Amino acid sequence: MSEPSKRGLEPSFTVAVPRGEDRERRICDHCGFVDYANPKIVAGALVAFSEHGPPHGEGCVPIEQVSILLCRRAIHPRKGYWTMPAGFMELGESTLEAAVRETREEACAEIECDALLAVFDVVHRGQVHVFRRATLVGGFAAGPESLEVKLFPWGEIPWDSLAFTTVHWSLRAWAESREQTVFAPYGNFE
Amino acid sequence: MSEPSKRGLEPSFTVAVPRGEDRERRICDHCGFVDYANPKIVAGALVAFSEHGPPHGEGCVPIEQVSILLCRRAIHPRKGYWTMPAGFMELGESTLEAAVRETREEACAEIECDALLAVFDVVHRGQVHVFRRATLVGGFAAGPESLEVKLFPWGEIPWDSLAFTTVHWSLRAWAESREQTVFAPYGNFE
Repeated sequence: MSEPSKRGLEPSFTVAVPRGEDRERRICDHCGFVDYANPKIVAGALVAFSEHGPPHGEGCVPIEQVSILLCRRAIHPRKGYWTMPAGFMELGESTLEAAVRETREEACAEIECDALLAVFDVVHRGQVHVFRRATLVGGFAAGPESLEVKLFPWGEIPWDSLAFTTVHWSLRAWAESREQTVFAPYGNFE
Repeated sequence: MSEPSKRGLEPSFTVAVPRGEDRERRICDHCGFVDYANPKIVAGALVAFSEHGPPHGEGCVPIEQVSILLCRRAIHPRKGYWTMPAGFMELGESTLEAAVRETREEACAEIECDALLAVFDVVHRGQVHVFRRATLVGGFAAGPESLEVKLFPWGEIPWDSLAFTTVHWSLRAWAESREQTVFAPYGNFE
């Protein structure tokens, strides 16, 4: 993506190995700027809620009494499909703060995070997804990037309309580790 | 960093909010390119070794019999100080593959990773450090970015000459969780 420029030039890059390095990078044809592209972190939360007691961890209620907060995407990619609150981590914040911010932006909701649920490698997109387990505190509503936000009872999760593989994996990881308080975060499922 | 350019221009950016966005970015003065800067992942490994048995996990030997592989940095920042094998994750690899590659490059060593040891937020540097627990397999030697590579017996760790706070934290996390097989990865210590 680019902005209107003062000189009227358009972005133009050549892929080459910079001096003294051993790996190809995009180098600007106009000014020699080296665009170091590294994987980006997508931070998010698997947000659970039950009116009967803790949705996970010690003393948690039966899974039939738990609902999961999902957002229907208003933007591409996967517009119209359901996802967890998550998005690109920004400079100046921690992975936890990023998950909390994204949940506020996309679901107008406050959460309490209690465990690192998963670290998924999404190599083909150049992303690492860092997802926390969280409980919903208070209400929710659709933010600008969501068509709607909804609490799905566990038995009514829209499995066929989930936006991304890592949403599937997160739900599965959450269900598998639900009764535990301390566990190793999940990695990619096969 | 930049390369010699065809037009003879130097990189020049103005910080502003791109159209349709809500956050300031660096925008190129020449061509309008938007430089989306997000936190980068530093992937690495806490590499342990004992000739008497497993250095950590089930049935591990006493900590006095364990040594830790550290590299003395040949490059800035913190040149001359000791660090774990670690470096910027690249596109096209997983966090695990990045840790293995960095260990090969910096310590000419092969490792077997067995747990996610820590996910540290280094907010002031715009980094997230993802470190795995690993055992050394075979030999080692200094790679081009290391002045020397050495196995330090636990009692001889050069605590006052460690390169980064997250190296301290990783050693502490490793010692605390050493006897466990399954544990939640550590976050920032206070």
